[in-house]
Amino acid sequence: MNLKRIRTMGLVAVAAVALAACGNLKNSSFGSSSTSQTTTTGSKTTTTTGSTDSEFYQGVIKKGRYRTSKSRGVNVSQNDNVMNLKSFETGLLDVSKKVFSTSKYVYQEGQYINTSTVEKWLGRKSKSNPDGLNPKSNGKTGANTRNPIYLQQLEEQDYMIQSGSKLSLGGVTIGLGMNSVDYYTKVEYGATYETDISTTELTAQGKKMANTVLQRLRKKSALKSVPIVLALYKQSSNDSLVGGDMIAYVVSKNGSTTVNNWTALNWKNYVFPATSESKNSGANSNDESDFSSFKSHVQNFFPNLSGVTANAHYQDKSLKKLSVNITTKFYSETEIISFTQYLATAAKRYLPSGIPVEITVKSANGDIQSFLARTAKGSSYYTHVFSDQGDN
Amino acid sequence: MNLKRIRTMGLVAVAAVALAACGNLKNSSFGSSSTSQTTTTGSKTTTTTGSTDSEFYQGVIKKGRYRTSKSRGVNVSQNDNVMNLKSFETGLLDVSKKVFSTSKYVYQEGQYINTSTVEKWLGRKSKSNPDGLNPKSNGKTGANTRNPIYLQQLEEQDYMIQSGSKLSLGGVTIGLGMNSVDYYTKVEYGATYETDISTTELTAQGKKMANTVLQRLRKKSALKSVPIVLALYKQSSNDSLVGGDMIAYVVSKNGSTTVNNWTALNWKNYVFPATSESKNSGANSNDESDFSSFKSHVQNFFPNLSGVTANAHYQDKSLKKLSVNITTKFYSETEIISFTQYLATAAKRYLPSGIPVEITVKSANGDIQSFLARTAKGSSYYTHVFSDQGDN
Repeated sequence: MNLKRIRTMGLVAVAAVALAACGNLKNSSFGSSSTSQTTTTGSKTTTTTGSTDSEFYQGVIKKGRYRTSKSRGVNVSQNDNVMNLKSFETGLLDVSKKVFSTSKYVYQEGQYINTSTVEKWLGRKSKSNPDGLNPKSNGKTGANTRNPIYLQQLEEQDYMIQSGSKLSLGGVTIGLGMNSVDYYTKVEYGATYETDISTTELTAQGKKMANTVLQRLRKKSALKSVPIVLALYKQSSNDSLVGGDMIAYVVSKNGSTTVNNWTALNWKNYVFPATSESKNSGANSNDESDFSSFKSHVQNFFPNLSGVTANAHYQDKSLKKLSVNITTKFYSETEIISFTQYLATAAKRYLPSGIPVEITVKSANGDIQSFLARTAKGSSYYTHVFSDQGDN
Repeated sequence: MNLKRIRTMGLVAVAAVALAACGNLKNSSFGSSSTSQTTTTGSKTTTTTGSTDSEFYQGVIKKGRYRTSKSRGVNVSQNDNVMNLKSFETGLLDVSKKVFSTSKYVYQEGQYINTSTVEKWLGRKSKSNPDGLNPKSNGKTGANTRNPIYLQQLEEQDYMIQSGSKLSLGGVTIGLGMNSVDYYTKVEYGATYETDISTTELTAQGKKMANTVLQRLRKKSALKSVPIVLALYKQSSNDSLVGGDMIAYVVSKNGSTTVNNWTALNWKNYVFPATSESKNSGANSNDESDFSSFKSHVQNFFPNLSGVTANAHYQDKSLKKLSVNITTKFYSETEIISFTQYLATAAKRYLPSGIPVEITVKSANGDIQSFLARTAKGSSYYTHVFSDQGDN
């Protein structure tokens, strides 16, 4: 698979979040449906993982096992920037929630497109790979003269409807992850070059490919008439500290085989504080100054604090989620406890309210030391100090 | 400092918890005292970190900064097994709570014994170090003929009483970390040998040293009459997957300079499932079989699950805390979300109730993926899926 470009990745390790499912499955318990309780090993019943938070879908369990994707693992090999993998998946969930309600639908990993199909589709079109969605090679290797790889990753998500102990397919979401930069080598194991792809071009290419995918899926009998959501994601560059952004989606209903009424999504991820490279032009300056106040108080509070950064997720220019990353050089358990208490106070006072916030405190070597989170509606922070980290 | 034995440590990394402050500062907010709100930078007021959970002490803030220990960092250099550092500190907090109520006292890192004093006390007694608490070298190097280092670490914790905006010292806890195995070399950078020390012997030595420490502290005017708690901790061996245990404590009141009415503590940490080396003879077999049920259901649920272990903390043969460590080989964000939902269901059904439980899900390279926790009184699990981990 010529797309499997495995390169070293140190760049990403430092910090930063992506679309970041803030993930408060608060007070999880058995799902509301009675069948979610039949999770015994070897059971023939199809059940669900259970979830009481309407922000999350329940997942499908079959014979006591989680039903994994038919193309499991493909996307991992497609992403040099892990942020793109995580934010692609959580972004697809967020888009899906606009169409498939979490209270009505149950989540199932994609069962209709298998690994070899995904690999073929992600490849270039050629004699040996007629199904490739990426353009034929034109034989050129210049950054602006070659045909780039537009489509970097593809994911299927299934949305099931539960009726008694039966689950039936209620809809499918297909995500196309489009490159904003295509990294390539001129010879095997050679130097890496880059072809930049404009948002206009990757969007046009993505919409065309989405129609091709839709036509192929409609040929499968199970997918003949269910709603199919098609979503475009713009991958961030490999040196970005944030993941990419969902840029558009469309719903194909009643078995339609073409779609054109796309809805644009103005979703953006920013890093706080802004750097000279990332001007954060779309971020709200009040949010940035709130974060600055928080950061300066926190950094004053403790010696040996290495870094305080945040990843801010915006939708339509309004802050939707804030993930704060704090790196410490502490050693003492009692210091971490006190610091965490202080953070809960400082976060409540300085950080924007009305949105989900998560704060992770990690040691310089990456072990998590404590974490705090508040839901959009919550006023106080849930906090947890980890003490089981064998961290040297 | 000849006690600073820095060796490689891979052994500990795998898993396991220690006395492990389970750490649910649930719904933290401003502390109950009004002064805990005056945390502005540069303020001259002494304030506290704030904590609404009675399980935790508030900490002391002075001029907007956390008041760190006068012997900060010493203990780090004394511990090859980081479990011993963490469980020593949280164990000391737990012992202190028996004497200094979290609702009345505020926690302050030790301010009366500084780094050079601690280093002297931890050394061997000698002409150049008359204050050394460990015995003189007898010149021998045989495992059973030499004088071992009994005292490995020492920590001071201060407990303050708040009155208006003033904090005054209300009591002090001193912990002595006693070696169950003393690791030594016969020549510098040479092979490591071990002297085993029986619990009887380390306890006797610790009690003698505690009296010496007490007499020294009583000479400081600030410590002349406050209650002083002395606690003995038995360090676990360097290859142990759990930290050591608090074994005894005593309270010196009214300025007394000797103590002898020690209270024995039957606190033990075990790893589940039991291994051939760790028979867990003191653990409750019902707790172990509960964990086994949980483990087998969880391992059946998902492919690629590397390990499910737990650290169980017992006091007086009764389970007080359970920390579960799960190592995955997952890649997909949606899989982690579903797995976490399932864990909340499975933990609620199979794990013992009425005690605090924490569950951490980590990737094979140590990045945390999700976490779940339930308090002793809670019936449901708080869950959080992390998505901001740049994990490759």
